[in-house]
Amino acid sequence: MDFSLTPEQKALVESVTKLAEREFGDRAFQRTEFAWDSLKVLAEHDLTGLTLPVELGGQGASLLDAVLVMTAITKVCPHSADALQASNFGAIRQVAGFGSEHVRREVLPRFLSGDALVTAGMSEPDAGSALTDLRTTARYDGDHVVLNGQKCWNSHGPDATHSVIWCRFGPASRDIGAVLVPFDSPGFSRGKRELHMSGESHCQLFMDDCRVPKEYVLADSGALRTMLSIFGVERMGNASRALALAETAYERAVEHAKSRKAFGKDLCEFQGLQWKFADMRVELDAARMLLWRAVANADAGTPDATEASIAKLHANRTAFTVANEALQVFGASGYSQEFPLEYIVRRTRGWMIAGGSVEILKNTIAGSIFGRRFDQRAGAGA
Amino acid sequence: MDFSLTPEQKALVESVTKLAEREFGDRAFQRTEFAWDSLKVLAEHDLTGLTLPVELGGQGASLLDAVLVMTAITKVCPHSADALQASNFGAIRQVAGFGSEHVRREVLPRFLSGDALVTAGMSEPDAGSALTDLRTTARYDGDHVVLNGQKCWNSHGPDATHSVIWCRFGPASRDIGAVLVPFDSPGFSRGKRELHMSGESHCQLFMDDCRVPKEYVLADSGALRTMLSIFGVERMGNASRALALAETAYERAVEHAKSRKAFGKDLCEFQGLQWKFADMRVELDAARMLLWRAVANADAGTPDATEASIAKLHANRTAFTVANEALQVFGASGYSQEFPLEYIVRRTRGWMIAGGSVEILKNTIAGSIFGRRFDQRAGAGA
Amino acid sequence: MDFSLTPEQKALVESVTKLAEREFGDRAFQRTEFAWDSLKVLAEHDLTGLTLPVELGGQGASLLDAVLVMTAITKVCPHSADALQASNFGAIRQVAGFGSEHVRREVLPRFLSGDALVTAGMSEPDAGSALTDLRTTARYDGDHVVLNGQKCWNSHGPDATHSVIWCRFGPASRDIGAVLVPFDSPGFSRGKRELHMSGESHCQLFMDDCRVPKEYVLADSGALRTMLSIFGVERMGNASRALALAETAYERAVEHAKSRKAFGKDLCEFQGLQWKFADMRVELDAARMLLWRAVANADAGTPDATEASIAKLHANRTAFTVANEALQVFGASGYSQEFPLEYIVRRTRGWMIAGGSVEILKNTIAGSIFGRRFDQRAGAGA
Amino acid sequence: MDFSLTPEQKALVESVTKLAEREFGDRAFQRTEFAWDSLKVLAEHDLTGLTLPVELGGQGASLLDAVLVMTAITKVCPHSADALQASNFGAIRQVAGFGSEHVRREVLPRFLSGDALVTAGMSEPDAGSALTDLRTTARYDGDHVVLNGQKCWNSHGPDATHSVIWCRFGPASRDIGAVLVPFDSPGFSRGKRELHMSGESHCQLFMDDCRVPKEYVLADSGALRTMLSIFGVERMGNASRALALAETAYERAVEHAKSRKAFGKDLCEFQGLQWKFADMRVELDAARMLLWRAVANADAGTPDATEASIAKLHANRTAFTVANEALQVFGASGYSQEFPLEYIVRRTRGWMIAGGSVEILKNTIAGSIFGRRFDQRAGAGA
Repeated sequence: MDFSLTPEQKALVESVTKLAEREFGDRAFQRTEFAWDSLKVLAEHDLTGLTLPVELGGQGASLLDAVLVMTAITKVCPHSADALQASNFGAIRQVAGFGSEHVRREVLPRFLSGDALVTAGMSEPDAGSALTDLRTTARYDGDHVVLNGQKCWNSHGPDATHSVIWCRFGPASRDIGAVLVPFDSPGFSRGKRELHMSGESHCQLFMDDCRVPKEYVLADSGALRTMLSIFGVERMGNASRALALAETAYERAVEHAKSRKAFGKDLCEFQGLQWKFADMRVELDAARMLLWRAVANADAGTPDATEASIAKLHANRTAFTVANEALQVFGASGYSQEFPLEYIVRRTRGWMIAGGSVEILKNTIAGSIFGRRFDQRAGAGA
Repeated sequence: MDFSLTPEQKALVESVTKLAEREFGDRAFQRTEFAWDSLKVLAEHDLTGLTLPVELGGQGASLLDAVLVMTAITKVCPHSADALQASNFGAIRQVAGFGSEHVRREVLPRFLSGDALVTAGMSEPDAGSALTDLRTTARYDGDHVVLNGQKCWNSHGPDATHSVIWCRFGPASRDIGAVLVPFDSPGFSRGKRELHMSGESHCQLFMDDCRVPKEYVLADSGALRTMLSIFGVERMGNASRALALAETAYERAVEHAKSRKAFGKDLCEFQGLQWKFADMRVELDAARMLLWRAVANADAGTPDATEASIAKLHANRTAFTVANEALQVFGASGYSQEFPLEYIVRRTRGWMIAGGSVEILKNTIAGSIFGRRFDQRAGAGA
Repeated sequence: MDFSLTPEQKALVESVTKLAEREFGDRAFQRTEFAWDSLKVLAEHDLTGLTLPVELGGQGASLLDAVLVMTAITKVCPHSADALQASNFGAIRQVAGFGSEHVRREVLPRFLSGDALVTAGMSEPDAGSALTDLRTTARYDGDHVVLNGQKCWNSHGPDATHSVIWCRFGPASRDIGAVLVPFDSPGFSRGKRELHMSGESHCQLFMDDCRVPKEYVLADSGALRTMLSIFGVERMGNASRALALAETAYERAVEHAKSRKAFGKDLCEFQGLQWKFADMRVELDAARMLLWRAVANADAGTPDATEASIAKLHANRTAFTVANEALQVFGASGYSQEFPLEYIVRRTRGWMIAGGSVEILKNTIAGSIFGRRFDQRAGAGA
Repeated sequence: MDFSLTPEQKALVESVTKLAEREFGDRAFQRTEFAWDSLKVLAEHDLTGLTLPVELGGQGASLLDAVLVMTAITKVCPHSADALQASNFGAIRQVAGFGSEHVRREVLPRFLSGDALVTAGMSEPDAGSALTDLRTTARYDGDHVVLNGQKCWNSHGPDATHSVIWCRFGPASRDIGAVLVPFDSPGFSRGKRELHMSGESHCQLFMDDCRVPKEYVLADSGALRTMLSIFGVERMGNASRALALAETAYERAVEHAKSRKAFGKDLCEFQGLQWKFADMRVELDAARMLLWRAVANADAGTPDATEASIAKLHANRTAFTVANEALQVFGASGYSQEFPLEYIVRRTRGWMIAGGSVEILKNTIAGSIFGRRFDQRAGAGA
C-alpha cells in the first residue's frame, strides 16, 4: 500500500496552484456568473479534457491527476473550478463518450477550447432523483430528432450553449437516451436566470418541438446503464471540489486561530476549539483517503460505484460540516459576505443534493452491502 | 406543572398570526433592507414595547406573551420579526431601563412609534466575545460626553438612527458603560453597507470625538452586570426567532413530503425520511420546552442566566440542524433562492454567533454546573 | 405554563430519596438478582400500585407522582427501581385493568404486597417488534384456557411467579389477547437463567398445553388497542429510569471533575470537558422537560402516544449518551466494574430496545407527523 | 497511490484466519481470563514478536503484516488477540527495545514462547493521563534497584508474570524511566483481581522496597521521549483490535439483516436500517484507510504521532459507534450475554480510554495542527 503522491503528482499540484493563484487569484471567491475567462485560461494551459483520449483532443491523463488539478484550482478559486468541472468531469464526458463522428469533430473541440459550454439536462419538475420518471420525449423525424419536454435546476444553464438532454425514445426504461441540444435550436428556450443558495445560476430549459440534427443523438436506446456509469467520474469531480473547499476553509481557520485573540489569548489556546479542530482534521483526512481510494482504483476508467458513492457521501458531509465549523471559528466575520467562509458553507451545501444526493448515495451503498437491488417503488400506493 | 398555553395565549397567537399574514404576507421572505413599514404596522397594533411598563409607553405584557408574538410573526415574515426584535427585545430595553428622564420622554417614544431605530453597538474589531476588551472610550466634557472608537458587525446599522454604544469611562471593567448615540451626532460616521450571510445589513460605526449630550449616557460606571442581565431577554428573542424559523421550515417540509412524489411514492412513505422527520420533531419539541421554561420562569423579569443559555444553545443548534434537514427534503428547490428554505438556513446560522455565541453559552453553562467562574484569560502567554 | 414541582411534590421526592438511601443504599448498584427485599420495603411504604385505584389496593396517586418516586429510587438503587417498575408500571397494570374479579381480589394483592412478581410475556423468537406476528395460541377448554407457545427475553422471568402471556385466540389481529399465567400451572416451564448485557436476568417461557383457569384470561378478543395503550405508562416508567440513571451518572461526573486532578488542575478546569458537560446538561434538561410534559399531560390517565414516544426516544438516547460521556470523565475507574458508571451505561443501553425500540418509536412519531399509518409490511416480498 | 493488499498480504490474512478459526474458534468470545493456551499456539506458529528483529527471536515482519495478523485473529477471537497484543504490540516492545543483554537473552524469549506475560505498569491512582505526575520511585542500591509505589488499572495484571514499571529515578521529568519487574520479586505484591467493563481482569501492583537486579532497568534517565514513541505501535495494535471487532459486529449485523424478518420483510428491506448500514460502512472504510495509512507509512519503524493519533481516534469512535449500532440491529439478542454483540460493545468502549484516551489524542492532534505544544498545566490554580 502507498498513501503518498509521487514527486510528479506533487509537482503537478504545485504548478497548477501557482497558475491558479496567478491567473484566478484576483477575482477568486468574487464572481456571480460563469467564469468564461477562466475557462479560456484552462484551455490555453491544456487543462480541459484532462482524462479524455488524445485523439479526441484530450490530455490522456489519469483520473487521479484530474482530481489533483481540480483540488488545486478549487482551493484558489471555486468559480474557475466550475469551468474545470464543465470542461472535464461533467456532461462533456457524455459528449466525448457517445458523440457521433460529427459531434466529436465539430462540437467537442469547442467545449475543450472554451468557446462553448455544455450542461447536464437531467432533472425535471416531476422527476428528481428518479431518473426513470423523466417525461421529456424524443422522436426521429427524417434527418432530425424532435424533443418535447422541460428540464429544471440546470446549473450554469443561463450561460451555457448546449445541454445533454436526457429523454425517452419510448416508454420503457431502456428507451431512455440523450441528445446534445444546441441552445440555438428551433423550439428551444430558456427560463429566467435563477440562483442557487450559493449564488451560482440555474434555469429551466424548454423544448417545444425542438429540432436537432440526428447526429446530435448521443444514445437512443439500451445505453442507460453505460451512460449512468459515467456519473462516477462526475461525482469524483464534485467530491473533489467539496473537499477542497473544506480544506481551504479549515486552513484559513487554522491561521485565524493562530493569530486572532480573545480574552488575551490566541484562539488556538482554547481547548474547546482545539478539540473541534482535531475533529475537523480527522474527518478531512478520512474524506481525503476515501476519495483517493475511489479515484486511484478507477484510474483506468470508471470508479467502482460503491467506492465512488462512499467517497462522495463522506466528502459531501465532511465538507459542509467542516466549512460550517470553520465559519464558526471566524465568528461574525465568518458570517459576513465580506469574507469567503459563508460562501464556502453555501457552496458545499449544494453537493449534498447535486450529482447524487446523500439519500441516493445511501441507497446505492446499501444495495452493495446487501447484494440486492432494493426496489424504491415497492410499497407505493396504487 | 403545566405545559399548555392558556386560552388567552392561544387567542393571542391566532390574532397575531392573522395580522402578520394580512399585513406582511405578500412580501414575506423577500426583503433585503430593514422593514420600516412592518415596524409601523407593529406600532399601530401595540406590538412594540410589549414587555415595557405602561408608563414608558409599553404594553406591560409578560415575556411569554412577547415570545408568543415573536414566534407567530417570525413564522410568517422573519424580516418583520426583525422589526419586532428591535422594538421589543434588543437595545431598546437598555434605553428603557437606563435612560435619563429626557431619553425616556423624548427618544424612547420614537423607537416605539416606528420613527426611529436603535441598534446594539458592542462588537469591536479587537473585542468580540470578550466585552471587557472593548476600547471605545467616553469622557465627560461639560454638558456632553465625547466618544472615540469603532464598532463593527452592527446589524441593521445602515438603516438605524441610533445605537447604544458600549464604551469605557475608565480603565477598569467596572468603568464600562453605555451611551445612546444619535447617528446625526457630530463626529459620528458609518462604514459602507455590508451583508451578513443571510442578506441582512451591517456596517461599522466610527466615533471620532463624537459629542453627545450627557443626558444620553445610559450608564457610566458600576452598571455592567445589570446591563448584561438584560441580554437574557434579547437572547430569548433570538432563540424564539431561530426556533420559529425552524418550525416553519419543518412544517413546510412535512407538507412537501406529503405531496411530492419520488419513484411513484409520496416522499413521506420512505422510512429513511420518516426517521429524519421523527428526529426533527423530537428536537423541535425539546427546544420549545427549554425555551418556554426559561421564558415562563422569567415572567416577572430577567430570565435565569443558565436556563436562558440552555434555551438559546439548544434553540440555535436545533434551528440550524432542522432547517438544514428541511432544505434537504426539498432537494434542488430547497437549494434555490426561489424558495424560502435556503434563506432560513442562512438566517438560523447567524444566531449561533450573534447574541451569545454557542461557545460563550457553553462557558456560561459550565460555570453554572461547577459553581465556578472560569477565568478565560488563565494560561494566556505573557 | 408552569415548569416547577409543587412543594408537595418536592417533599415527596425528598422523603422517598431518604427512604431509598436508608433502606437500599447499602446494596445499591450491587445486585444480580431480583430485589425481593426491596419490593417488600416498597410495599410496606405504600409505594406499590401508586397509580392504581384505592379500591384495588392502589394509592390513587398521579402518574407524575409515580414518576417522581421512580426517579428518586432509581438514582439511589436501580435494582430497587426494578421492583418499583414491576409493582407499578409494568404488566401489573394489565392485571389491574383487565383482570377478572377473582384475579383482582386474589392475585393482584400479592403483586402489591411483594409476595408475587408478574412479568410481561410478549416477545417470541419470531415476533419481536411486530406484535401481531405472535404465534402463541390460547383456546378455551371448559373452565380452563389452554396455551401453547414460547416466549423469550422475559425480563426477571427466572425470579417471577406469573406472566401476562400475550397470545392469540384466533387468526386475526383482533383475536390477540392475554392470559395471566401462574408459573406453577401444568404445562408451563422456564428455560435457563440468561443475562442481559446489564446483568439482569431473562429466560424463555414454554407453554405446552399449559392449562390455566379461565378466570385468568385478561382479554380474549377486541381489546388489543386498549391493552397496547397501557404501554404508554410502562414507557414512562422506563424513560424515567433511563433518565434518572443518566442524571446520577452526570452528578457523579460533576463531583469527580471538581475534585480529580490532571496535569495539576481540577478536571473541570479543562475547557474541552466543560463543553462536554454543557452538552450533557442541555440534553438532560431537554429530556426532563419532554418526559414531564408527557407525564403531566397524562395525569388523568394514558399519555398521548406521540408525546410518550417522543419522551421515551429522547430519554433513551440522552441517557445512554450522557452515561457514556460520564464514564469517559472517570477514565479507567469509569470502565471498571468496581464503580457504578459502567453498569449505568450497560443498563441505559437496554431501554433503546426494550419497551418500544427507538426504531418503533420513530415509526410511531412519523405516523403522527404525517397523520398516516404507514404499513410496515408494504413492499414485502411474496 | 495504492490502496490494495498484495497477494502475499491477502494470503497471510487467509492463512491466519484459518489458523484462528481452527485453534481458537471453539472458545471464541467465551473467556474471562487470559488466554494462555492461545498464546502458546501463537508462539508455535511464529506469531509472537512479529515486528521484532530476528536476532532477538522475532520475525522481522512489517508493522502492516502485524496489523493484518491482529485483524484476522481479533475477528475470530478477541481473547486470543489479547495474547497477540501482549506478545507483539505492548510492553514487550519496551523490553526488546531497552532491555539489557541479560533481559534480552533470558527474559524476552519467555515472553515470545508464551511462558511468561509482561504488562505495562504506567497508571497510578493520582496520575492518569499525565504520565509525568507519576510517583513511583526507583533508586539504585548496589546491584539492585529498589522500587516504591503503586500502579493501578494493570490490565491482565492478575495473570501476568512481569510488568514494565514506569518510575522516576529523580524529581525531574527527564528522570522518568522504567524497570522490568518480575512478580516474584521481594517487596512486590498484587491487589485482588478486578474486572473491566469488558470482563477482562486488572489489578493494582504494589512495590514496597521492591528489589530487582539492576539488569532489569530498561531506562533510568533521558529516555522518556524514546520510550513514549513506542506507544505509536501499541496504539496501532489497539486501533486494529477495535476496528476488527467493529468489522465483525458489522458483518454479523449484515447477515442478520438479510435473514431476520420483521413485519414479514427481511430487516434489510427497511430503508431506515439501510441508511444506518450505509453510515456504518462509510465509517468503517474511513477508519480502515486511516489505520492503514498510519501503519503503511510507519513500516520502517515508528508511526508518525499525528497519523497514529488520528487513526486511533477514528478507529476508537467508529468501533464503539458501529458495534453499538450493530447491537441495535440484533435487538434483544444483541443485548443478551448469550450472543457476542454486547461483549463487542463493552470491549470497544475500553479503547476510548486505554492506550491514549480520546481526549489525549485530541490534544496531540491539536498540537500538530497548530505546530505548538499546549501546556496542559497552564492556568492551574496556585
